[in-house]
Parts: sequence; C-alpha cells; structure tokens
Amino acid sequence: MLETIYGRQAIREVLRAGRRVRRLLVAQGTRDSAVVRELVGLAAERRVPVQEVERAQLDRLADHHQGVAAEVDGYAYADLAELLYAVRGTHPPLYLVLDSLQDPQNFGSLLRTAAAVGVAGVVLPHHRAVGVTPGVRRASAGTVEHLRVARVTNLARAIEQLKAAGVWVVGLDAGAPQRYDTVDARGPTALVVGNEEHGLGRLVREACDFVVALPMEGPVESLNAAVAGSIVLYDFYRQRLAPT
Amino acid sequence: MLETIYGRQAIREVLRAGRRVRRLLVAQGTRDSAVVRELVGLAAERRVPVQEVERAQLDRLADHHQGVAAEVDGYAYADLAELLYAVRGTHPPLYLVLDSLQDPQNFGSLLRTAAAVGVAGVVLPHHRAVGVTPGVRRASAGTVEHLRVARVTNLARAIEQLKAAGVWVVGLDAGAPQRYDTVDARGPTALVVGNEEHGLGRLVREACDFVVALPMEGPVESLNAAVAGSIVLYDFYRQRLAPT
Repeated sequence: MLETIYGRQAIREVLRAGRRVRRLLVAQGTRDSAVVRELVGLAAERRVPVQEVERAQLDRLADHHQGVAAEVDGYAYADLAELLYAVRGTHPPLYLVLDSLQDPQNFGSLLRTAAAVGVAGVVLPHHRAVGVTPGVRRASAGTVEHLRVARVTNLARAIEQLKAAGVWVVGLDAGAPQRYDTVDARGPTALVVGNEEHGLGRLVREACDFVVALPMEGPVESLNAAVAGSIVLYDFYRQRLAPT
Repeated sequence: MLETIYGRQAIREVLRAGRRVRRLLVAQGTRDSAVVRELVGLAAERRVPVQEVERAQLDRLADHHQGVAAEVDGYAYADLAELLYAVRGTHPPLYLVLDSLQDPQNFGSLLRTAAAVGVAGVVLPHHRAVGVTPGVRRASAGTVEHLRVARVTNLARAIEQLKAAGVWVVGLDAGAPQRYDTVDARGPTALVVGNEEHGLGRLVREACDFVVALPMEGPVESLNAAVAGSIVLYDFYRQRLAPT
C-alpha cells in the first residue's frame, strides 16, 4: 500500500535507510529551498524519481510540508524471530515492547528514544494499538526507518518467546512497588511500556519478569508515557555504557 | 488577566493547589458525568462558584473539554529570589532552567517531569519563550500549579545568580563532549535545557559550569527536547534517592 510522508527529517531518513520510496513530490517553485535541494540530491543518489506538483496538492496533505513529500511503501515490519537473532550476538540486546500506545506523537517520540539507545527491535500488538503510520514516521523524526519493528497477534505470548530466548522482561507500571533503577539491565533486556491511560494489561503484566515504577514526588501521579519509557530506556542504556 | 483552562487534570490541580479560580463552567446536562461531579465537588470545598453554560460555549473553547472549564487568574509567577531560598534548606535543591522552549506541548511535558522529581523552581526567560499559558497548564497535566516558576529578563544573569547562591549549573546540549551521567548532581544543581531547534544560546551556554550531552547511537542526532530534559532530570533525581 502506498503512503505519503512529509517532514524534512522523515523523508531524509526514509531515503538514507534505503526503505522503498516510489516518488519524491516537490512543490513548484521550491527547488531553491535548502530543504528541497538536500532531499532532491538524496533522491538522485538513490535513483528515486522526482516529480513537480502544484503546491495545493501538498497543502491538502499537511500544514507544514516545506514543499516536499515522499510516496513510499507502507512500513515494512520485521518478524519477531528476526529480532531475536540479536540475542546470539556479542552485545546483549535491548528491546522495547509497547502495549497499546494510542497517541501517534507519543509513539513516535518513544521510537526516537529507542533508536537513540540502539534497541535491537520494537514489538507491537496488531490490535488495539497504533501501527507505524505516516504520522508516526514523522513524529519519530524518521528514526523508525532505521529500527526493526515487529507486530504480533498476542503480546503476552511474544513476551514468553523473549523470555525463552534468554531476555529479561521488565514492565513499567506507575503503581509497581519496585524502583526502576534497581534492575540490572546489562544482560539481554526488554522494556514493556503500557498505554497512556491504563498502563499495562493484566496478562502482559503477569508475563513480565519484573514490574517497576518511576518514583515521584508530591502530587504527581504519572508521567507522559513516552517520557516515562524514555527515562527507563536511557537508564538501561547508561548501565551498558563503559564508565568514563 | 482572566484565562480559561480545561482538561480534567488541569482543572483538578488548579483547584487542589489553591490557585485562584473565579468560576467553574459546566455544560448543561453533564452534571452526572464522573469528571464533572468530581470537579464540582472540589469547587464546592474551595468555595468556587459553579455556573452552567451552554455546551456550545465550551465547544468554541476546545475539542475535548469533557463538559467543564475553569476561569482562572493568569498564572502567578514567583521571583527568582524566592526560588533561591531553597538553597538554605536541608535538602539540596534541583532547578530547571528553560532557554526559549517554543512548543507548549514540550514545555508542559517537561514541567510535568520537573514536578515529578520535586524541583525547587523553574526559570524562564521573559522574551522569545512560551509562558505558562492555558495550553501549557493543560499539557503539564496540571502539575505546573504546584511548581514555582520565575520569569527573568536576562537568563545568563539569572544563571550567575544561581551560581552565586551555590548552585552548580549544568547545560544540556546535543553537541557537548561531556556525558550527562558524569555529573555529580547530589548538591544544589540546575539543569538548563535549550530550544528544540537551536539548543542553548551562546551566552547561556557560556554561563553554565558544565555542558553535557546524552550519548546516542547510529543515525540519531537528537531527541525531543522535553524527552532529553526529562531523562537528565531523572538521572539527577536518581542520584539523590537513597539506595534501595
């Protein structure tokens, strides 16, 4: 299925990552802008056709298209089995598992952090969750193009498969008694982040090896789901970095 | 100046924090909803008048008003001097300084994290930055009502005042060579977070004691500003927590 994506970073990364791009659409009279010049140059390197269109055609697509859009194939998902190969590598992999995140902005923002800490893969449920839509690709600042994302029918079962492969699975849930920074995340580890409103589903929570929470002061009861997930991902990443 | 805020959490916290609320506006026919009942109950405790209005009046205000809005005084800022009293307390304070953050959603989200780690205050520049607008109050999930926020004319000078009071000032900037987790943040510490696009301004960066960055893998060049600031705030907070 063809999709249209826009946003300088989203288009740049879809080209750089070698994802399949059918056409770059450029609004008439914008070839001189720095953004368009850079993307047209990248498209030429990748032998992607460039087509001029009327500005109104892009205006219908988005408010801030900067004069350029890309027609791409729908996001190509990976298999869970493919993600699990990383367990055999020399570096213990880190995984991100998302339980029914609803907001594309949160989803994209968390994927951007996942890419920054070099996760070996992201696991999503097929149902009751946002997939990698054009809006998510944009909200991730294009970083999702460099990630492996697998969609699974049954998230609890996927967690069992991760555990069977030797991955420790850590759920993040505001009410949990264990503090997030008590987990040793230097081995193969997966972080499971729940829905913005309801946290982790019961079956998913029960499948986790640990469930942890971020400590909070005073009247604050929860954080933005993407922010909370990002904080824990970075704490796990920090543990793996060589001391300076 | 009167402002109208909406959103269940934003209204609940403005009432709970004892900020001045002039009237609670409730759409006709919504008194039975759980959200409205809770807020009307809180308003009664605080002796805030409740007024029924036509639903259309709230529709003009926002898409998802849940049938209720609050007329409040504009956000009451604190003085920098007031924020600095905390240095004399028994717990070393943590401060958040924002250099020209533009996006209200990012701003609100970072304030929510600041409240969660119990900052002693937030410092903003008067110019070239979003203030605590109704949109920011909502995006912070109401947590900004419990924070002390000071606006200053000259941010570099405010940083000098923090330093003179014994606070170590740490700037966060994607290009910095020093890693964020090398900072000992157990004493009085301020974190300075820059603009989404341009990072820290030159004078602000020069005023900092250290400038640090989050390490990142592969093709990722930066994180969402609110996410990056939240990660470092939580790392500083984690350092201050008693080991478990």
